[in-house]
Amino acid sequence: METHKQLTIGLFGFGVVGEGLYRVLQQTPSLNARIKKVCIKNYGKKRNGPASLFTADKYDLLNDRDINVIVEVIDDADAAFTIVSTALKNGKDVVSASKKMIAGHLPELLELQQQTGRSFLYESAACASIPVIRNLEEYYDNDLLHSIKAIVNGSTNFILTKIFEEGLDFKQALLLAQQAGFAERNPQLDVEGYDAVNKWTFLLTHAYGIMERPASILFSGIQHIHAADAEVARAKRQEIKLVAQAQKLKNGKVAAFVLPQFVKQDDPLALVKNEYNGVVIESAFADKQFFYGKGAGSFPTASAILSDISALRYHYKYEYKKLNHHLPHELSNDFFLRVYISFDDASVIPRERFEWIEEWHAREGREYLVGVISHRELKSAEWWKENNVSLILAPDPVIEDLELRKLKRKSLELAGVL
Amino acid sequence: METHKQLTIGLFGFGVVGEGLYRVLQQTPSLNARIKKVCIKNYGKKRNGPASLFTADKYDLLNDRDINVIVEVIDDADAAFTIVSTALKNGKDVVSASKKMIAGHLPELLELQQQTGRSFLYESAACASIPVIRNLEEYYDNDLLHSIKAIVNGSTNFILTKIFEEGLDFKQALLLAQQAGFAERNPQLDVEGYDAVNKWTFLLTHAYGIMERPASILFSGIQHIHAADAEVARAKRQEIKLVAQAQKLKNGKVAAFVLPQFVKQDDPLALVKNEYNGVVIESAFADKQFFYGKGAGSFPTASAILSDISALRYHYKYEYKKLNHHLPHELSNDFFLRVYISFDDASVIPRERFEWIEEWHAREGREYLVGVISHRELKSAEWWKENNVSLILAPDPVIEDLELRKLKRKSLELAGVL
Repeated sequence: METHKQLTIGLFGFGVVGEGLYRVLQQTPSLNARIKKVCIKNYGKKRNGPASLFTADKYDLLNDRDINVIVEVIDDADAAFTIVSTALKNGKDVVSASKKMIAGHLPELLELQQQTGRSFLYESAACASIPVIRNLEEYYDNDLLHSIKAIVNGSTNFILTKIFEEGLDFKQALLLAQQAGFAERNPQLDVEGYDAVNKWTFLLTHAYGIMERPASILFSGIQHIHAADAEVARAKRQEIKLVAQAQKLKNGKVAAFVLPQFVKQDDPLALVKNEYNGVVIESAFADKQFFYGKGAGSFPTASAILSDISALRYHYKYEYKKLNHHLPHELSNDFFLRVYISFDDASVIPRERFEWIEEWHAREGREYLVGVISHRELKSAEWWKENNVSLILAPDPVIEDLELRKLKRKSLELAGVL
Repeated sequence: METHKQLTIGLFGFGVVGEGLYRVLQQTPSLNARIKKVCIKNYGKKRNGPASLFTADKYDLLNDRDINVIVEVIDDADAAFTIVSTALKNGKDVVSASKKMIAGHLPELLELQQQTGRSFLYESAACASIPVIRNLEEYYDNDLLHSIKAIVNGSTNFILTKIFEEGLDFKQALLLAQQAGFAERNPQLDVEGYDAVNKWTFLLTHAYGIMERPASILFSGIQHIHAADAEVARAKRQEIKLVAQAQKLKNGKVAAFVLPQFVKQDDPLALVKNEYNGVVIESAFADKQFFYGKGAGSFPTASAILSDISALRYHYKYEYKKLNHHLPHELSNDFFLRVYISFDDASVIPRERFEWIEEWHAREGREYLVGVISHRELKSAEWWKENNVSLILAPDPVIEDLELRKLKRKSLELAGVL
């Protein structure tokens, strides 16, 4: 039977999440976790806690030998990295919620964990209340993990829901999201997909042992989605979601990207509304499994942090099994995507760069096409991010066997079906 | 870094699950798991595998020092217990899918795990493809776990779906379920709730450290549900599901039961159709989290078994944390349930045993009432299981503060609202 560790916590940040944590830990003595000191940036500000609890000097926490756990819920990625790395070096376990920091420094953070032997847990950094990291790390052997598809950004999903269900325009919906506290202080991080691709970066590590920088993953946000795209989706009885996706290819590598995608009614991701997140996992035999929960907001975040804290009592560590015990997977460039593209000016569309174009709808005002294009092209080109062009993936967008598809198309053409 | 264990497996049972496992392990060498011998009851039967693989003598597996893992997927609970306990005593790790056997022998099995230090994993025994045991064991500290509500029996859910969505009668729906392979050989086990309460017995251990026999949990199945009940549900725009539920009460104990329940449209469990299972977990802060996946059928079962097998490579064990590291919770008898009861003959309803009756609908043929009754009464009495009476819980059925509710009702009556 494992020993039961007594936790003395140094907390960085006392916003809604930080203060919520403080309250719950006071109310839950059985967790054996006590917050000894809280470091805050704005020291003058009035706080709901004894003055003796607070300090503005991070070393009051980082150098306190009595403190064996640092919990970090601040908004500044650079400051967070300094805090986390110093804490680990000083022999403390760390719980962090800073997805940007984690995505940007994962290799260094892994090395620090190995050097120091301390735990670094960050379940709250992806899908807040859904234990997705723990399940990928502990449950889904990557030889059995066929694909993972997820809505990982609550605020863009909130915005898309408001646009689709309440017919709001983008600006109104964004404002609502910010008022509800679901959008980052800088909405660009959410809206343009940075937050989603940051989360996807380390989820790929836990899913497949892939270790990449966010910049090496094909992604965009929802900023280019046009009102006309929503009409098209409605006509097809589909929805548009910002979907992070990864799936194993026959070549043994992994296709991964974060892009807007048309989602059919019978896809579990279609059920994910407002600030909720959802994860669909396909593994050998199991068909689809679906995890659903709140992905944004202070409470779900605090909840995941609490689970990490309670795991530290049992000396829990991520082992990065897919990286250390398996043959890690690599990202593939050799696949194709079926895309929907809408535009005002056909001349900005480089038709020659498509493998083929299946549909071309010239309409009043807004035209759109459906075609197949290589991942390489999208990764390197900029034209689909400019000139008021909107790119949305078709459902099941990944195409591996282009030759087969071409032959099939040819035969259909010959048969006069197309 | 942990050592990577090489697994040599002795497999009991070569039905769809067993044979499926054999094929996948052959196709996935990286799992480092090889099936050395398969024990089958019906030795004469032709099998898709080399004759040398099979034996009818269980000791060819249990006494083979070369075999370090026993996987057991047979249908006979008593035989399964002999196999599992002998295997553990002989120093082998064990993976089992026999929910009935586990529910009936959990105390002995825990003791055997402690004595032998071996792993005994059974994720496939509950909610097949959903990693519910692993999440309850590893992720949800029971101080943070407010409630868990689940559909754990795929065949009854399949039957209810067919009755509701395709208007089939019970017999037709049951036949379909059996044809599809979702019903136990003996349908009574599913239909009358035995399978569900068996699973709930050990899920309560992993959720709250509760260690009880199935007989001490209030349960029934769907066998008494009447066509008129489905009409009432439709009129309320609700569904009827067989729901296993457990929630913490203010007295620190846990209310737990497995009964048919009216489920509202906005309850995630309403999304669970056909043979799927669903689990809704409420924990501190997190609001609702929902896990959804296939709960019956050979492939989802095989998938969960594969995850257990791959976990053995890392020496994974259930620690029964809620039992060993926490103050285990107890079942409570001191709560009340809001119930719907339909019947042909009003004289069989003991009105005096209700706290109060809120509605009484006398209709052509089938009457029904809605009232509040104590858990004790339902636990001890038989009248609601006989005389063609049908009992279905109202949504959110648990009532703790009866006095408060009474006062509220009184005031409403005085106000002439009721």
